[in-house]
Amino acid sequence: MEAAISTLITEFKKYAGKDGSSSTLSKDEFQSLVSSQLSHFVKNASDPGTIDQLMGSLDENNDGELTFTEFWQLIGKVACQQGCFSQ
Amino acid sequence: MEAAISTLITEFKKYAGKDGSSSTLSKDEFQSLVSSQLSHFVKNASDPGTIDQLMGSLDENNDGELTFTEFWQLIGKVACQQGCFSQ
Repeated sequence: MEAAISTLITEFKKYAGKDGSSSTLSKDEFQSLVSSQLSHFVKNASDPGTIDQLMGSLDENNDGELTFTEFWQLIGKVACQQGCFSQ
Repeated sequence: MEAAISTLITEFKKYAGKDGSSSTLSKDEFQSLVSSQLSHFVKNASDPGTIDQLMGSLDENNDGELTFTEFWQLIGKVACQQGCFSQ
């Protein structure tokens, strides 16, 4: 599990570091991450409307940037859709 | 990222399925998971006091079982300690 967690942190940082604040995801960075890394788990991952909606639902303090904690909530929801309630 | 997420789900299910409800972690299952899978990330992972404290802080509905969502909050906190605020 620790290797998997490290992978998620590393990938988050890779995308968060592309522009602006290196510890948060801008909308462009979030779109890039979702469309390239979560394309099977997030439906219509390359649709701008999907990205707007996800970003709005996750950005709790509404500052246009996603922190790791905010991003983590998305992964949790996505993970649940993949299986946590399917038993 | 999707492979890493799948790994976390699979491992959660493996431990959750050991006794009782197969979709939640009992305290024994949680202790077994933390001590064998998160021993580097969680300090004093094999100490019963640590497990009690973590379990109490995570079990939001206080039923003695951790759902995947509750467990996910722990992983998020652990992940943050590993790096999300260290930049």
